Amino acid sequence: MRKFLFNATTPPKVGVLPEGPHNRLSDVAGVTVGQVTLNQGNIQTGVTVIYPHHKDLFLHKVAAGTSVINGFGKSIGLIQLEELGVIETPIALSNTFAVPILAQAQIRQAFTKHPQIGREWPTVNPLVLECNDGILNDIQAFAIQEAHYYDACSQQQVYIEQGSVGAGRGMRSFGLKGGIGTASRYVSADKQHLVSALVLSNFGALPYLQIQGHAIGQQIEALQQLEAQIDKGSIIIILATDAPLDARQLKRLSMRAAAGLARTGSNYGHGSGDIAVAFSTSNIISHDKTDNLNPTALIHESALNDFFNAAAEATEQAIINALWYATEVTGRNGHHCPTLMQHLQKLELIG
Amino acid sequence: MRKFLFNATTPPKVGVLPEGPHNRLSDVAGVTVGQVTLNQGNIQTGVTVIYPHHKDLFLHKVAAGTSVINGFGKSIGLIQLEELGVIETPIALSNTFAVPILAQAQIRQAFTKHPQIGREWPTVNPLVLECNDGILNDIQAFAIQEAHYYDACSQQQVYIEQGSVGAGRGMRSFGLKGGIGTASRYVSADKQHLVSALVLSNFGALPYLQIQGHAIGQQIEALQQLEAQIDKGSIIIILATDAPLDARQLKRLSMRAAAGLARTGSNYGHGSGDIAVAFSTSNIISHDKTDNLNPTALIHESALNDFFNAAAEATEQAIINALWYATEVTGRNGHHCPTLMQHLQKLELIG
Amino acid sequence: MRKFLFNATTPPKVGVLPEGPHNRLSDVAGVTVGQVTLNQGNIQTGVTVIYPHHKDLFLHKVAAGTSVINGFGKSIGLIQLEELGVIETPIALSNTFAVPILAQAQIRQAFTKHPQIGREWPTVNPLVLECNDGILNDIQAFAIQEAHYYDACSQQQVYIEQGSVGAGRGMRSFGLKGGIGTASRYVSADKQHLVSALVLSNFGALPYLQIQGHAIGQQIEALQQLEAQIDKGSIIIILATDAPLDARQLKRLSMRAAAGLARTGSNYGHGSGDIAVAFSTSNIISHDKTDNLNPTALIHESALNDFFNAAAEATEQAIINALWYATEVTGRNGHHCPTLMQHLQKLELIG
Amino acid sequence: MRKFLFNATTPPKVGVLPEGPHNRLSDVAGVTVGQVTLNQGNIQTGVTVIYPHHKDLFLHKVAAGTSVINGFGKSIGLIQLEELGVIETPIALSNTFAVPILAQAQIRQAFTKHPQIGREWPTVNPLVLECNDGILNDIQAFAIQEAHYYDACSQQQVYIEQGSVGAGRGMRSFGLKGGIGTASRYVSADKQHLVSALVLSNFGALPYLQIQGHAIGQQIEALQQLEAQIDKGSIIIILATDAPLDARQLKRLSMRAAAGLARTGSNYGHGSGDIAVAFSTSNIISHDKTDNLNPTALIHESALNDFFNAAAEATEQAIINALWYATEVTGRNGHHCPTLMQHLQKLELIG
Repeated sequence: MRKFLFNATTPPKVGVLPEGPHNRLSDVAGVTVGQVTLNQGNIQTGVTVIYPHHKDLFLHKVAAGTSVINGFGKSIGLIQLEELGVIETPIALSNTFAVPILAQAQIRQAFTKHPQIGREWPTVNPLVLECNDGILNDIQAFAIQEAHYYDACSQQQVYIEQGSVGAGRGMRSFGLKGGIGTASRYVSADKQHLVSALVLSNFGALPYLQIQGHAIGQQIEALQQLEAQIDKGSIIIILATDAPLDARQLKRLSMRAAAGLARTGSNYGHGSGDIAVAFSTSNIISHDKTDNLNPTALIHESALNDFFNAAAEATEQAIINALWYATEVTGRNGHHCPTLMQHLQKLELIG
Repeated sequence: MRKFLFNATTPPKVGVLPEGPHNRLSDVAGVTVGQVTLNQGNIQTGVTVIYPHHKDLFLHKVAAGTSVINGFGKSIGLIQLEELGVIETPIALSNTFAVPILAQAQIRQAFTKHPQIGREWPTVNPLVLECNDGILNDIQAFAIQEAHYYDACSQQQVYIEQGSVGAGRGMRSFGLKGGIGTASRYVSADKQHLVSALVLSNFGALPYLQIQGHAIGQQIEALQQLEAQIDKGSIIIILATDAPLDARQLKRLSMRAAAGLARTGSNYGHGSGDIAVAFSTSNIISHDKTDNLNPTALIHESALNDFFNAAAEATEQAIINALWYATEVTGRNGHHCPTLMQHLQKLELIG
Repeated sequence: MRKFLFNATTPPKVGVLPEGPHNRLSDVAGVTVGQVTLNQGNIQTGVTVIYPHHKDLFLHKVAAGTSVINGFGKSIGLIQLEELGVIETPIALSNTFAVPILAQAQIRQAFTKHPQIGREWPTVNPLVLECNDGILNDIQAFAIQEAHYYDACSQQQVYIEQGSVGAGRGMRSFGLKGGIGTASRYVSADKQHLVSALVLSNFGALPYLQIQGHAIGQQIEALQQLEAQIDKGSIIIILATDAPLDARQLKRLSMRAAAGLARTGSNYGHGSGDIAVAFSTSNIISHDKTDNLNPTALIHESALNDFFNAAAEATEQAIINALWYATEVTGRNGHHCPTLMQHLQKLELIG
Repeated sequence: MRKFLFNATTPPKVGVLPEGPHNRLSDVAGVTVGQVTLNQGNIQTGVTVIYPHHKDLFLHKVAAGTSVINGFGKSIGLIQLEELGVIETPIALSNTFAVPILAQAQIRQAFTKHPQIGREWPTVNPLVLECNDGILNDIQAFAIQEAHYYDACSQQQVYIEQGSVGAGRGMRSFGLKGGIGTASRYVSADKQHLVSALVLSNFGALPYLQIQGHAIGQQIEALQQLEAQIDKGSIIIILATDAPLDARQLKRLSMRAAAGLARTGSNYGHGSGDIAVAFSTSNIISHDKTDNLNPTALIHESALNDFFNAAAEATEQAIINALWYATEVTGRNGHHCPTLMQHLQKLELIG
């Protein structure tokens, strides 16, 4: 009965809403992603940088909201994001110990462009989120440098590679190889608006893994000795929409990441920093108050329900995709992490 | 393949942890529940009252925490619960428009026992949570009276009836009959501690309904014309534990209700007041500051992970149980709500 | 040196910004207040009802935000206000035990006008805030009835009486007679926008009372035996502005009430429910999503600083005014509360 | 009348509670502070590091809570502090752009001592708070290095220098020279417990400055041309207590910093990152869950009121002290900042 549960060529689709054109975060027009991957023995890590748009982000901030689903995490930038409801730098993802150097790179990038920052103008709010890849990666080596951030910024593209790449290089999820995943959903049948997601997936206890409702984790478990069955990883979930939501609405939207996350088998583990950030590309806030404010017709609150469904589905799909596309990695001290695909093949669940 | 997916005699078990002895909120020793059901034509509603223990609750408050998963709700009492981390009355559940009269009943109950309340002593913090049963019940009739609350208080028992009873009488969930459900889980194999749940379930859009990961809602949908596919109901989730967690830890615990909720198919709909409250029966806070404080050995934070799993599983199970045990109800203006069981039988999924 | 510190004809002005035309909440155009006062022996209480505007509030909600400065309070309505960022009923203030009956009155008022509420439409979110007047008033008598609310609604006016009136009838502040106070401030010299405040003032420990920076409480203390020097009262602060702030900005604005409050001598006492709610009369949100959304040019974030100063000053002034205009009250069991004015006269600080 | 308003030898005392033995953060036994000051032309900045105790902080975490009074700030570490209620590193204060390098130093410090961190053990949560000293200091020079942090750690002492030292070197407050200030208050007459405060003070608009209730800012204003009258600085407030408060109680305590802050003239300006962190030295949480948990008799909630008064007073006093002890600084591009003392002397208010 379980043979060929999944089709080998494409990840199982979750949810009921239609996928966006490329099923990627970048389906929201203007959004791009750049990734730098470090793959050198004990160093298995990287950087993923997301641009909400390609005008100057400090001058043209994007409306944003955040939900800290479980706050066992070491991000920087969420306090001000919560207060002011905007993002004013690219969003950087990496390993936990790389947060400082990436924040420094963002600060330098901002004042290099605008020397008034921190002087005549306010300081800039860096935004860096993280998971701990310390099993596969020598996180104590501080391998990530400022240059990696600038490289990721200069390699922005619409096409987003998934799996063991960028910040996802050393990540594990459900005891399997995790990493970067992305997906998108149209909000409704008329395809007027999209919500898209990108995850840095490093969470999960294998016994709880579900795919399309199938308790896959229970089947895999028999096949391997797991050191730990405890969810102590973390996941970062970035949501984008092309609809004009304001910061409060985006905060509500970001909370729906928790629903998609749960459907893959998460109970928001004690040691897991589960954080979602949502932004809108059509609600731009000028830094300069003398700018003409083009008043925005916001989305009516009662129309948000469809956006919430899209956010949850895109999140769930992005997590499945991260597992699906991950390639195996051998890293620090020979630690090795197998992939979901390898297990599905052994279980003859795929064909 | 799908025939006899479920066994007719017992609800499908979700999750991996062992059930408590009676799979009920009251598996946490000392917790009892009383329910009053109104079933008279257009009036299809009721009251459910939970006692965390049977000493004087105002003098012996229980540590508690809350998570507002989606705040489209009209409860009373959560602001002070969040600030002080305690519950000092029984917990009352009913329909949305009955919140005021139940809060008044709780106030009267408290100062009748302690005439100092609101005078030499502070006022009492009523705690009433609600869902809207306005389709099946004539909610505008204000049918619930103070006496119903006192009746529910005087009918406390360990045995908890499920389905279309008490506050659950007129509730709908996923377009099917909802109501009261309860379940419990041992935190670990050694069965040292329990987390138990009781839900007032009135949420859900049918296309999203999942049971044990099966997309049951998709199958039922074909069988019925639904006026609306939108999640605009609400769910109240009460969690109990016999372990000595403090208020902050209980807040964390309550958040895990969101994971169990999501696995039944919720995306925390815009119009759904999704609220969880968790309390501990072994962390009692004396009102009187001259009381000897018996210092409590709290649960170590890193041990919470198992409690989180239990909370999520008990919540998911309680929601399934509410659907499973619900009996059909015809109410206001002949509005009728069928049951999950009826649909499972039509679909020949049960036997 | 201290003689004639204050002028007898008008309360001392605090802060640096110019007062609005009438120094009242209703300086924000469209805002009105109605008050019902109960003065019958042991019953010394009342109701104060604020209308943000005079169109249908359920259909034309006002953007709003709230700050729970200290959550020892029993209000109803803040959970949904926080989630959705709107007010959809008049704002009712009264004593702690009157919250339920006033919420019930608001519910009845809403569905009487719109019978769809709770049926085809969602339920309505009542908004009632409170302080405990249980020393001067027999709070256990439940003297407030639904009719008092409707009376207060039908007696709306631009002129707002201050002191021992409406919900303020039985309130005490700093051991002196408190009650209703109101004030307003222009946001800037060009007088383009206003922030106005109304307080229900029932908080404060006398040793901390400051007026215009003068430690008046220290002088009064010598003159009277105080049963208690502990701040266990509460204060409700309602802020209005005619500028188009959104819900997140109004939440920020409401937080500044805490600054004005502190400058009168509050440390946000443990037993004091200190809650601020701010709304904008020029950011109206239609209930009906097919309504044309007239896009609003919001206030630029960096312009909020002036609004913050105005909010803090108006709050501080409103508290001083409540003390200043309060008349002495003798209530329950002969409990008597003297006024600030009486003490200032005894101290020969006024002339 | 205003001549010799203040005594030249000691800062004016605010509030009513008795000062601690040395009126310093370190009056709470075990707490020490180390400061490194950079004073080289355009570089006018520094680092201040606080140790809650001198056992291993990662193994023996201290209970803590935080209040973000206004979140225009770029700290790191508050998300996890809020979730878990503990501090597990020394607390570092510096300029805004030094947050990354100090966080990196804290990470390195932690895993150097415990190589399991980020591997067998979870990662460490750095805690760095900041204000912007970019007028007097060339903040874009990234002058602070990891070594400065280690130096500050190795120079811990009970004696705490105040004014233009450590992280306070380049800070301005009310347009005057700000910096480091500290104070303490006994909670009650029996002197059983203390609350102490240390501030990094960089906030304030001069027209609002109040000292002991005197509107000093209004008098100084006439004497100088101010580029800006806007509060865009920030203040970090660290509170310590020797009483066994838990994380929720410490969060409540930290909020009272907002009261003391307001009484110096703050309205929590839009551009001001106003953040308070409170910790207890007698509520230690073991990292290792096999440790014997010595159950702690917590402070009864109703006894917190006295702690709240102490927190507010200590904060207000620490801010006054920072202004009082500050020495003038000439820094970046010749920017010069005069002191409160200079102005008090010109105004002949001191003698």
